Amino acid sequence: MEVDLIGIGVDLVEVDRMRRTLARTPTLVERLFTDAERAYCERRRDPTERFAARFAAKEAVMKALGVGLGAVGWHEVEVVRAESGRPSLALTGRAADLAAELGVVRWHLTMSHTSRVAEAIAVAE
Amino acid sequence: MEVDLIGIGVDLVEVDRMRRTLARTPTLVERLFTDAERAYCERRRDPTERFAARFAAKEAVMKALGVGLGAVGWHEVEVVRAESGRPSLALTGRAADLAAELGVVRWHLTMSHTSRVAEAIAVAE
Amino acid sequence: MEVDLIGIGVDLVEVDRMRRTLARTPTLVERLFTDAERAYCERRRDPTERFAARFAAKEAVMKALGVGLGAVGWHEVEVVRAESGRPSLALTGRAADLAAELGVVRWHLTMSHTSRVAEAIAVAE
Repeated sequence: MEVDLIGIGVDLVEVDRMRRTLARTPTLVERLFTDAERAYCERRRDPTERFAARFAAKEAVMKALGVGLGAVGWHEVEVVRAESGRPSLALTGRAADLAAELGVVRWHLTMSHTSRVAEAIAVAE
Repeated sequence: MEVDLIGIGVDLVEVDRMRRTLARTPTLVERLFTDAERAYCERRRDPTERFAARFAAKEAVMKALGVGLGAVGWHEVEVVRAESGRPSLALTGRAADLAAELGVVRWHLTMSHTSRVAEAIAVAE
Repeated sequence: MEVDLIGIGVDLVEVDRMRRTLARTPTLVERLFTDAERAYCERRRDPTERFAARFAAKEAVMKALGVGLGAVGWHEVEVVRAESGRPSLALTGRAADLAAELGVVRWHLTMSHTSRVAEAIAVAE
């Protein structure tokens, strides 16, 4: 298959800052993350690292699409976990429309986090 | 368009270290960054995070090209900002010559920074 | 050459945590790193940053292959340094078999480290 690299996005999120932000605004977790994302993150006693990595993934996708925050909804970019543990992306709504307009046929997502910082890289093909 | 991935480079820069380095050697800002880069960074009261991200971008490009520091001039790899806010790369001089020799037809650049660390990833197609 | 992006992996490793882990289990260095990797890292008075970057590279490769830790041996993913200083990957054993099954024809590797954190990104084409 002939492919073309459409965009790449990276995002770093400080875990402590995510922790403070979520503590300050308890409704934010629901606004930022889908039910499935919350269920996965909350299996951990401290879900903050996982939330930070998913937040980074959403921002990385927006950068790969070349749009600013607010151009797509937070729930429209969802991190999905295969049984193997491999993460992937599911786009819906405006995010899916925008990706289709740009000709994106496939996404690659990779994430990493330490106790201090979380990172995600999204690549649009 | 048929493309080939020529190289990828990542670079991390600690914001505090960049702050100390720039404070110690005031002439360094002009040596490292172009007029347009300085103007963009200095719109912030504290421009250090933006300087760190741009320094990381220059180093990421050198890694993607497979050359060491000093092989190209600091001003020859410039981070340009579109009106949309999307960053891109403009290469001149030896950097442009080297990229042309390697067959680079397009660059992708993505950057992120927290208050502690800045990162850039450059991909040469 | 027509290429296809098969996978991308990123990994972050805290340098202090790597230092404590290696201090606690002195045999770990030999289990994790090949002779050539150890020789290269130990040219530094403090080899920890380099060890952390190489450990991140091994984990990034596993993520790019879509497998969990333990699916391939630590020595089966080796970071090799060209005379130019450019790092690359050499896969052997199960890691090489798995990459061949997935159709990987080429790897790209880039690494960066500060005194605090090391990062590696591996791209499988």
